Amino acid sequence: MALTGPGLTAVNHVIIDRMQSPVALIPELAGHLIAGGGKRLRPMLTLGCAALLEYGGTRHHKLAAAVEFIHTATLLHDDVVDASGLRRGKATANRLWGNPASVLVGDFLFSRSFELMVEDGSLKVLKILSSASAIIAEGEVAQLTAQRDVETSEDRYLEIITAKTAALFAAACQISAVVAERGVAVENALEAYGRDLGIAFQLVDDAIDYVSDADTMGKDVGDDFRDGKVTLPVILAYARGDESERSFWRDAMRGKRASEADLAHGQQLLSKTNAIADTMARARHYGARAIDVLAGFPNGPARQALTETVEFAIARAY
Amino acid sequence: MALTGPGLTAVNHVIIDRMQSPVALIPELAGHLIAGGGKRLRPMLTLGCAALLEYGGTRHHKLAAAVEFIHTATLLHDDVVDASGLRRGKATANRLWGNPASVLVGDFLFSRSFELMVEDGSLKVLKILSSASAIIAEGEVAQLTAQRDVETSEDRYLEIITAKTAALFAAACQISAVVAERGVAVENALEAYGRDLGIAFQLVDDAIDYVSDADTMGKDVGDDFRDGKVTLPVILAYARGDESERSFWRDAMRGKRASEADLAHGQQLLSKTNAIADTMARARHYGARAIDVLAGFPNGPARQALTETVEFAIARAY
Repeated sequence: MALTGPGLTAVNHVIIDRMQSPVALIPELAGHLIAGGGKRLRPMLTLGCAALLEYGGTRHHKLAAAVEFIHTATLLHDDVVDASGLRRGKATANRLWGNPASVLVGDFLFSRSFELMVEDGSLKVLKILSSASAIIAEGEVAQLTAQRDVETSEDRYLEIITAKTAALFAAACQISAVVAERGVAVENALEAYGRDLGIAFQLVDDAIDYVSDADTMGKDVGDDFRDGKVTLPVILAYARGDESERSFWRDAMRGKRASEADLAHGQQLLSKTNAIADTMARARHYGARAIDVLAGFPNGPARQALTETVEFAIARAY
Repeated sequence: MALTGPGLTAVNHVIIDRMQSPVALIPELAGHLIAGGGKRLRPMLTLGCAALLEYGGTRHHKLAAAVEFIHTATLLHDDVVDASGLRRGKATANRLWGNPASVLVGDFLFSRSFELMVEDGSLKVLKILSSASAIIAEGEVAQLTAQRDVETSEDRYLEIITAKTAALFAAACQISAVVAERGVAVENALEAYGRDLGIAFQLVDDAIDYVSDADTMGKDVGDDFRDGKVTLPVILAYARGDESERSFWRDAMRGKRASEADLAHGQQLLSKTNAIADTMARARHYGARAIDVLAGFPNGPARQALTETVEFAIARAY
């Protein structure tokens, strides 16, 4: 935080400035999500990677804001897709203003993010972030297709979260190397760091959905369970279960077992099969890979901060 | 059509090629709308304007496809926002595949459109189309805000449709001047042609919603009436109505008068107040402006085709 603090203030300034519109509902709805307890994790990655490369300019501020706008747009659309009611401990925008407004303000923020990139003027950054955006949407549609399908393989699941979550983490890191003009090898290294961190982050999220509660998480526990969202904990518990347990998961993912008692039973099966513990082990694997990428960079406060970011992402579950 | 035919084949090739994805639901859902009777009006404007400027290259094919992707993305999201069930005479994508898939495939097409622009590599085109996209979203949110508000002024309404409809028509025309490198004055002229045509087009749409039927229009008659969408016919009928008529429109726009009999009564009031005829008169005004812009260009088959496009846009209502 000490490292990225001043940069983050500059990024927040861009974010607040550029979410404005004469149409009052836009800053009102966007501000609910943007001002409302977001961690600014992705912009902080852009800032942290820029610090790692000792980039001395300010171009990355606008681009970090563009990344946060893309993220916010996907959150607004995700909440509509999942019919979620709670995010970061607050009522979701779609619950407060309805699905239509959430869809359209998401579209606005998405367009605005491209306007910010165009102002920066790097076609390479535009290519990275437009490609990441298409991959995110592909990943979200793939997840929709896999929804309720308890036979989803671990490989397939990793493809989905690499697209829907890790692609933006990776892009947020990679663009710092582009503005710092450090060449393809450095770009690829930071892309790999962000991608592995993003996978770890999503796996931890998946675990937390079964072990936490609304007070600590800011979202309802068991959301994935009730939505029939097949995540790694379920994939592992299903693979390791006997026939009656598999039958339970099939029913649960089809929405036939959505009560509190069913959730409690699911949690018991996850515990019995070590599915949560092993989801966390997988997350630590990707976290370790991310940290090892950093070994190619000089040690110092920036590398330390990016290392701790991985550790914190994983420690959220404990 | 003779003029833009070969170009349109090239554009369609790009469209079909670039809506593909390993995630099968994406081309399936996108293809339903893209292959399903779309008029390709906006790409044809890009082609027509390029022909007007005697542009000999092919860069505009990719860009015309990008414009069509933006348009298709907004249609997918519009149908979710309006909860529409019928478009171009077919069941809407959201009715067939659900709202989540429509939102996410819209996001995919939107991202893909930016990928196409990045491949072309013109920052100026990227600026025009990212700005148009933000303005479209702003216009859609503004319309949402004005929904059911029968006191919406004609000025305010024109601002809304200039944003939500005419901005993309304008951009589709303007980008031809950019790729043809014809300078700011020509860009502005074609932008104005597209904008005025877009306003005329939307006003005719608004009129048609009250005078046509599903067979000729491919969408349900009275959609706007039932959705409480305050369009120019209603604005004029309200302004010209007596107190009991105004009370009817207030109730109707609030959704309290949504029966077939109510719609018939509304149609009768529109007829009595000349609201449809005068909406068409307004449309002809913008159409005449668009045609007059073309006077600055050499006469020939391209100018003739762009003139006829305006005439056809208006004649749809008759």
